[in-house]
Amino acid sequence: MRIQYVLPGVMSKTDAGKKEMQRRLGLLQKWASDGTTVGIVDIENGPMSIESHYEEYLSAPGAMERVREAEQAGFDAAIVGCYGDPGVDGARELVRIPVVGPGEASMFMACMLGHKYGIVSVMESTVPTLDKLARLVGADAKYIGAVSVGIPVLELASDRERTFAAIVEAGRNLAGRGADTLVLGCMSMAFMDISGEVEKALSIPVINPARAALAMAETLVRCGLSHSKKAYPLPPKLAAARR
Amino acid sequence: MRIQYVLPGVMSKTDAGKKEMQRRLGLLQKWASDGTTVGIVDIENGPMSIESHYEEYLSAPGAMERVREAEQAGFDAAIVGCYGDPGVDGARELVRIPVVGPGEASMFMACMLGHKYGIVSVMESTVPTLDKLARLVGADAKYIGAVSVGIPVLELASDRERTFAAIVEAGRNLAGRGADTLVLGCMSMAFMDISGEVEKALSIPVINPARAALAMAETLVRCGLSHSKKAYPLPPKLAAARR
Amino acid sequence: MRIQYVLPGVMSKTDAGKKEMQRRLGLLQKWASDGTTVGIVDIENGPMSIESHYEEYLSAPGAMERVREAEQAGFDAAIVGCYGDPGVDGARELVRIPVVGPGEASMFMACMLGHKYGIVSVMESTVPTLDKLARLVGADAKYIGAVSVGIPVLELASDRERTFAAIVEAGRNLAGRGADTLVLGCMSMAFMDISGEVEKALSIPVINPARAALAMAETLVRCGLSHSKKAYPLPPKLAAARR
Amino acid sequence: MRIQYVLPGVMSKTDAGKKEMQRRLGLLQKWASDGTTVGIVDIENGPMSIESHYEEYLSAPGAMERVREAEQAGFDAAIVGCYGDPGVDGARELVRIPVVGPGEASMFMACMLGHKYGIVSVMESTVPTLDKLARLVGADAKYIGAVSVGIPVLELASDRERTFAAIVEAGRNLAGRGADTLVLGCMSMAFMDISGEVEKALSIPVINPARAALAMAETLVRCGLSHSKKAYPLPPKLAAARR
Amino acid sequence: MRIQYVLPGVMSKTDAGKKEMQRRLGLLQKWASDGTTVGIVDIENGPMSIESHYEEYLSAPGAMERVREAEQAGFDAAIVGCYGDPGVDGARELVRIPVVGPGEASMFMACMLGHKYGIVSVMESTVPTLDKLARLVGADAKYIGAVSVGIPVLELASDRERTFAAIVEAGRNLAGRGADTLVLGCMSMAFMDISGEVEKALSIPVINPARAALAMAETLVRCGLSHSKKAYPLPPKLAAARR
Amino acid sequence: MRIQYVLPGVMSKTDAGKKEMQRRLGLLQKWASDGTTVGIVDIENGPMSIESHYEEYLSAPGAMERVREAEQAGFDAAIVGCYGDPGVDGARELVRIPVVGPGEASMFMACMLGHKYGIVSVMESTVPTLDKLARLVGADAKYIGAVSVGIPVLELASDRERTFAAIVEAGRNLAGRGADTLVLGCMSMAFMDISGEVEKALSIPVINPARAALAMAETLVRCGLSHSKKAYPLPPKLAAARR
Repeated sequence: MRIQYVLPGVMSKTDAGKKEMQRRLGLLQKWASDGTTVGIVDIENGPMSIESHYEEYLSAPGAMERVREAEQAGFDAAIVGCYGDPGVDGARELVRIPVVGPGEASMFMACMLGHKYGIVSVMESTVPTLDKLARLVGADAKYIGAVSVGIPVLELASDRERTFAAIVEAGRNLAGRGADTLVLGCMSMAFMDISGEVEKALSIPVINPARAALAMAETLVRCGLSHSKKAYPLPPKLAAARR
Repeated sequence: MRIQYVLPGVMSKTDAGKKEMQRRLGLLQKWASDGTTVGIVDIENGPMSIESHYEEYLSAPGAMERVREAEQAGFDAAIVGCYGDPGVDGARELVRIPVVGPGEASMFMACMLGHKYGIVSVMESTVPTLDKLARLVGADAKYIGAVSVGIPVLELASDRERTFAAIVEAGRNLAGRGADTLVLGCMSMAFMDISGEVEKALSIPVINPARAALAMAETLVRCGLSHSKKAYPLPPKLAAARR
Repeated sequence: MRIQYVLPGVMSKTDAGKKEMQRRLGLLQKWASDGTTVGIVDIENGPMSIESHYEEYLSAPGAMERVREAEQAGFDAAIVGCYGDPGVDGARELVRIPVVGPGEASMFMACMLGHKYGIVSVMESTVPTLDKLARLVGADAKYIGAVSVGIPVLELASDRERTFAAIVEAGRNLAGRGADTLVLGCMSMAFMDISGEVEKALSIPVINPARAALAMAETLVRCGLSHSKKAYPLPPKLAAARR
Repeated sequence: MRIQYVLPGVMSKTDAGKKEMQRRLGLLQKWASDGTTVGIVDIENGPMSIESHYEEYLSAPGAMERVREAEQAGFDAAIVGCYGDPGVDGARELVRIPVVGPGEASMFMACMLGHKYGIVSVMESTVPTLDKLARLVGADAKYIGAVSVGIPVLELASDRERTFAAIVEAGRNLAGRGADTLVLGCMSMAFMDISGEVEKALSIPVINPARAALAMAETLVRCGLSHSKKAYPLPPKLAAARR
Repeated sequence: MRIQYVLPGVMSKTDAGKKEMQRRLGLLQKWASDGTTVGIVDIENGPMSIESHYEEYLSAPGAMERVREAEQAGFDAAIVGCYGDPGVDGARELVRIPVVGPGEASMFMACMLGHKYGIVSVMESTVPTLDKLARLVGADAKYIGAVSVGIPVLELASDRERTFAAIVEAGRNLAGRGADTLVLGCMSMAFMDISGEVEKALSIPVINPARAALAMAETLVRCGLSHSKKAYPLPPKLAAARR
Repeated sequence: MRIQYVLPGVMSKTDAGKKEMQRRLGLLQKWASDGTTVGIVDIENGPMSIESHYEEYLSAPGAMERVREAEQAGFDAAIVGCYGDPGVDGARELVRIPVVGPGEASMFMACMLGHKYGIVSVMESTVPTLDKLARLVGADAKYIGAVSVGIPVLELASDRERTFAAIVEAGRNLAGRGADTLVLGCMSMAFMDISGEVEKALSIPVINPARAALAMAETLVRCGLSHSKKAYPLPPKLAAARR
C-alpha cells in the first residue's frame, strides 16, 4: 500500500529543508510494515512551523489540497503531519481514502494503554490547541493536560540533549499529576525518534505520534475502512459541480 | 465606537455582491447602538459560501488578515461574519481588540434565555460543524442539536417564503425535541431579518446571530474587556519578530 | 430604556445604606449606554449581606417581588443584584421582561474571553454556592473554581487596600491553577469599581459582574429578546387565576 | 429516634388540611422502623402547593426555620417534604442533624437500582426544576428526564383512578425512552401510596420519595452520619453572632 | 429480615480466619437494626484479599454463586463484601433480592453528605479500580479521587495505630484537595470500626462502607424495592432453561 | 510476530467446536499482516457464550490465565476474544505484552471514523454491558447506544440471511438516531465476516471487531508499545511473591 505523508508547512524551499524531508521519509519508511511505501510532500504556502491556532489555519488550505492530490495520485491513505491535525476534517470531506491526524491517532492509542494520559508539547502557546483537539475528537475522558518544554519547534533538534532533558522534565510533571501514559505532542519531536529513551527514563509508555499515525493509516487500509462520508460529506457546492 | 464586520468569503467581486454587502451594512448599522459605527469588508480569496469544514478552512486565513487590518485601522472590535466562527481563535492570537464569533455569541446568549437550545442550520453538511463548535466553545451543556433546512446558503434569500417555512419546520422539530430557545445558524439567514417572524410562529425566543454578535462586540468594548492574551497569546515567531 | 437594579437585601433602612444605594446607582448610570436609565431598589425583609445558601433563600422572595413590580412599573429589564442570582429563575417565571443574574451574565462573558475562568469570592462559605451556580447555568465547561478572599461582604469596602491585595492574591492563586480570565464573584466587590486595577496587576481580563449584568440587560432589550416562557412558564396557579 | 417531617407549604390552616397532615403522619409512622417516631409540621407562610421555581423560593424560608426548630426540639433528623428539596442546602447550613430532601434521596436510590431512571412529575412546569435538581445533586449520570402527568398537585388525590392511569402512561413513556427505574416526583403522589400498583403495571421498580426520604433519614441517624459542615458551613454572620 | 454478607475471598479455611469472620459478623449484627439477622459466608475458591482487577475477577464467580444460594435460602438481601463490588452486576442478573455493593452504597451516601468526596484506599494498585467504580455506578460527579495508605489489606489490622495514622494522613491529603466527605475504601478498614475516630481527627464525615451497605440493604428491603430486572435481566440461556 | 487469540468460553470440547475454532483461526490468519502468526485457544471452564455480566465474570478467570500462558509461551500480544472485553484489565495486570479487547479497540476505531457511532449487539441483555464498556474505556463521547438483533449468540450463524437482515435493521435504527459509523458488537458476528455486506447496505463504515482487535495488536507490537504498568500494576501479593 502507498501512504502519503503531507507536511502542512513550508520545508522543501531550502536545501536543508529538502534533506530533512528525506530524513523524515527514511524514518517513516523504516517504521512502515513490509509492503507499505511512504511518500512525503510539503505545501507551497504556509508557516515554517505550527505553534498557534493562527498557524494551524494558515497550513490547512495547503494540507487539504495535498490530500486531494494524494487521492488522485492513487495513494491509499494520507497523513496530515502536524500534531494539531490542521484541516483533517476538511480533508476528509474532500476524499474517500483515510486521512489520519497524528494528534487524534496518538490520543486514542494513549486511551488504550492506560487510564490517564498527558501530552508533552512544544511552546506554551500550543497547550490550548491541544486541549481543544482532545475535546474535539472525543479523547478527553482520559486526558489530563499538556505541559510544554518551552522550546520552539525549529530549535528542538538543534540541541538534542537539552530537548531530551526538557521532555523528561515535562513528562515527570505530568506523571506527578497522575499521567500513566505520555504522548509527544509535536511532529518535530516525533522525528527526533526519542520516545524510546523517554520511556526508559520515565517507566511509562511514550507514544511517537508519527509512528502512531502511520500505523493507524496502515491499519485502516488493511481493514478496508475509511472515515464515514455521512460524517464528512463532500461540500455541497463541490457535490453539485460533480453532478 | 467602530466595529468591523469581516465577511469571510468572496462577495464584493460582483455588483450584486457589492450591493448585498451594502444592504447588510445597513442592517448592522440599524441594529447598532447610538454612537457605534459599523464597517464591512470581505476577503480576497475564499469560498462563495461556507457549508463545510473545508470551506471554513479556506476562509480562515483571509478572515484573520482582515481582523489584523481592522485593529491597525483603529477599529474597537471585529466580528468574523460566519456562523462557524472560522479563524476566530487564530485572529484573537493576532490582536488585542475583541474578536467576536456569531456562533459563540449567539450560543451563549441562548444559554441565558432557556434550558435547552437548538440551532436551525442550512445544509445537512453544516450540522457536524455546529456540533463541533458548541463543544469547542463550551456551550454544549444546554445544546440539543441542529436541524437543517436543506437549502444552500446562496439560495436562502431567493425564495423568502419557502425559507421561512423551512426554518419554522426545523424549529418545530427542535422544539419537539425539547428546545425552548432557537438560534439561526447561518449569517445569510441572519440578514434575512427573519427571527422576529419565526419567534412569532413558534412562541419561543429566536436569536439572530448577526445582532447577537454585534451586541456582544459593543458590550465588550463598553465594558473595556477583550479576550485573554494568556489564552490567546501572540504566536511565538511573531512575538520574536516584534522584539 | 429603563433597567431596574434589584438589591436582594436590606440596605435602605439606614442613612448610610441609602447613601450607598445612591452611590451604586451613580456607578450603574455611569456604566450604562446613552439612552438607558437605571433604577435601584432594595427589599423590605431580607439579609444584610448574602454569604450562604441560607441567605440566598431569605433574599429570593423579596427579589422576585421587586422584579414583578419592575415589570408592572414599565421597566424594560431587571437585574437581581447578588452574584448568586437568588430567585432569578423564579422571577423569570413571573415576568416577560428579561431578568439578568450577574453570576450567570459574568460567567458566560468569561466563557467568551478565554479557555478557563475562575471566580474571586468573598467568604469560603460562598464557594459551594458558586460551584453550584456554574453547574446550574451550564457554564461549568470552562470553570476551574472559586477562591475566597476571606473578608466578609460588609467589610470589603472598609479597607480598600487590604481588599485589593486579597483579590490580587486570590486571582494569582487561580491563575496559577490555569485560569486565564477572572470574575469578581460579589456585588460589593463589583461596586468597589476595582476590576481595572486587578486586571492591571494580573495581566488577565477581570470581569465586573455589575457591569456585565447591566450590559447584558441592555443587549437583550436592544435585541428584542427575553427568556423563554417555555423554559420559565408562569406558575400554574397564577396562570389559572389570570384566566 | 425522632424524625421531623417539614411540609414546606401551608396546610394546617383548614380542617381538611389538618386531617390530611394527620393522614400523612400516619403513613410515615407506618413506613418507619420500629423505634422511630415521626413528627409533622407545616409552615406559616408559603404556597399551597409547589409547581414552579417561584413557589420553591416562597417555601424555602419557612422550611429552613422549621428545620432549625426541629434541631432545637431534639429531633434526630429532618425531612423537607417537597420533591424539589427547597431550602435543603440552606437548612443544612443552619443545623448539625441530617436534613434529607426526598428528591435527592430518591434519585440516588434510583441510581442504585438500575442504569437509567426517569421521574414522573406533576405539571409540565416542574420538569425544569427536576432537571435542575438532578444536575445539582450530582445524580444526572443516570437521569433520562421527567414526564409530567399534567394534573395540578392539589387535584392529584381527587380522582385516584385518573391519576393512576396518567402516572402509568407517563411511566410507560419514560420506559420507552430507556428508563429501567422510576421515581414519583411529587410528595402528593407519594402520599397516595400508589408506587406498588404502578410497579405492578410497569414491571420496573417505582420509588416512593416519601419512603425513600424517611429510610435515608433513619439510615443516616443509625450510621451516626450527617452532612459535612465543611460543605455546609454555618453562615458567617450567624457564626460570628454565636461567638 | 435476614441479610447475607458474602465475603468474596477465602477466609474460613484457617481458624484465625473463622474467628475473624465471627468477629465481623458480630459487628454487622451490632450495626443492624432491631429485627435484622445477619449471616456471613465466604467463598471456596478465590483470593486472600482483593487489591487488583485481577483479584476482583477471581472473586466474582464465587461471590455470584453465594448470592444465588442466599436467595434460595430465603435471605431478603445480600451484600458482596468487597469495596470494589466484584460481581455485583452479575449477581443482580441471577436474583430478585437486592444485592448491595459497599462501594456503590457508600459512594452515593457520600454524595448526599457533601459536595466533593474522596476515598481512602489500601494499596496504590486499587486506585484505578476505585476510579473505575465511581465512573461505572454514576457517582463520579462529586468524586475527587482516591489516596492510598500503602498498607496491604492483610496487614491493616496488625498495627492499628500505624493504620489509623496513615488513614488520617490520606484523608488530610484528600481534604486539602477539596474533599468535604470521606469514604473508607476497603472492607478490612471498615471492620476496624475506625471511622468515628478518623471523623474526629479530620472534622469531616467519614463513611464506613460496611455499615453503609448494611443500612442500604435494610432500607431497600424495608421499602420493598430491589434492582430493576429490566436493567439486570436473567441471562438468556438461564432464562431459556427455566422455561 | 505471534498473536494469541484467547476465546474466553468453552468451544473445543465438541468436534463442531474444534472445527469452528479452526475456521476462526483461518479467518484471523487471513486478516493478519505478512509476518504475523496467529494462535487460538479457548478456556477450560466457562460459559458457552457471553450474553450477560454474569457470563462475563465466569469467563474472566480462564481468559486471564490464558493471557498469562501466552506471555510465557512467547506470544507478542494477546486478544481476549469477547466483545465485552472480560478480564482485559485484570490480564494487563499480569503481563507486559499488549492485551487487546475487541470492544475497546473497535470503539476507538469508530471514534476515528466519524462523529457518532452505534453498536449492533446480540441479545437485549448485552446492551447494558456495552453501555458500561463505552463508559469504562472512555469512548463514550461519541457513543450513541446499542441496538440488539434479538438473536442468541449460538444461533447467529445458523441462518445467515436472517442474521444479516436483523443486523441491517438494527444498523438502520442506529443510523436514524444519528450514527454515522457502526460496530458489530459480538465476536460471533465478527466471524461471520459480514461487515462488508452490511456496509454496502447502509453506506456507512461498519467495523469488524475481530479485525480491529487484530490490527490494533499488530500496531502496538510494531510500535513497541504496551499498556502502562503504572496503570495496570502487578497485583501486590504477586509482586511480593516474585521478590
